[in-house]
Amino acid sequence: MPHLFIDYAAGLEAYLDMGAFCAALRDALAGTGVFSPDGIRVRAHRADHAVIADGAEPYGYIDMILRIGAGREAALRERVAEEIYAAAEREVAAHCAALPVMLSLEVQEIAARFSVKRLNTVRSRIDARGGR
Amino acid sequence: MPHLFIDYAAGLEAYLDMGAFCAALRDALAGTGVFSPDGIRVRAHRADHAVIADGAEPYGYIDMILRIGAGREAALRERVAEEIYAAAEREVAAHCAALPVMLSLEVQEIAARFSVKRLNTVRSRIDARGGR
Amino acid sequence: MPHLFIDYAAGLEAYLDMGAFCAALRDALAGTGVFSPDGIRVRAHRADHAVIADGAEPYGYIDMILRIGAGREAALRERVAEEIYAAAEREVAAHCAALPVMLSLEVQEIAARFSVKRLNTVRSRIDARGGR
Repeated sequence: MPHLFIDYAAGLEAYLDMGAFCAALRDALAGTGVFSPDGIRVRAHRADHAVIADGAEPYGYIDMILRIGAGREAALRERVAEEIYAAAEREVAAHCAALPVMLSLEVQEIAARFSVKRLNTVRSRIDARGGR
Repeated sequence: MPHLFIDYAAGLEAYLDMGAFCAALRDALAGTGVFSPDGIRVRAHRADHAVIADGAEPYGYIDMILRIGAGREAALRERVAEEIYAAAEREVAAHCAALPVMLSLEVQEIAARFSVKRLNTVRSRIDARGGR
Repeated sequence: MPHLFIDYAAGLEAYLDMGAFCAALRDALAGTGVFSPDGIRVRAHRADHAVIADGAEPYGYIDMILRIGAGREAALRERVAEEIYAAAEREVAAHCAALPVMLSLEVQEIAARFSVKRLNTVRSRIDARGGR
């Protein structure tokens, strides 16, 4: 953990480099100081079809769901939500002035008891490079 | 809010216009009278791979997750679930008689404290058009 | 139910046949003995963009969310999580030795009261074939 799932409108790609957007959010997650960097997984999925608001135009949207391990204090979760959202907001504000956009984030918790994550060969690869 | 995430089998596209399906569900969400139309976000993501039921055929499926703000009464959430499902069911029944399909909907709540959604330039665009 | 949503990195496709991976997980779900086979829906969505861990390489990841009907005992949910994860782990270990990968699974519950699923023409198709 953490997992950041980004669901976005295809029309955004004309304005926003979504790979760079994911990288900015990875950096924001690492910058919170809350998560081990080698557990960060940011990914973006482009919708195949979308109808937004009144449906009168192909409006943009980015909806993000951040899943983190359960048990952290509410105030910490609020701070993380704000920092991640602010990072996304900066990117959208910088690049999407010409496209109406709705940007949203929700933070969810993952109960340790009902999750499994033991296979992680990324960690050993980073260690082998001396990168951690 | 609300967010309607539609996950569907590629094979459905031969029977169902998924853009029109999204539009029908947007109208159903607006028609409940529960949500502000300018907060509606309906989007559909086609699966890259799927194995359904016994896996003997490329069956169709549509699975929908509707996320709405927390705090509404249970009876209201049940009514919304029923109205949105019924709208989807009408579309599937009208167009997919030749394809076996499983259609499902789950309604989830978003806790306001752990969500952020302040950037919304769609609203001002609609206002500028005098459309709200 | 159950619903298994698999979100994966594009780079995995060079190592892992994702259709076969879905089929293996379908068999694992059926093999738990907990679910009716004709309710199983396994699907995989390839991310369009991803930045993982330190972002230094295009690492692989597979994140799975299994949604099952609420009300089953915790010990049973833990057993199901372990069996499904183990099936995925075998596939990854067998095919992805050359690619660093993070594999994760979370089990979530679906509240019956806020879900609808009555349309299912897959079941009658299987019955018509005498396949159930």
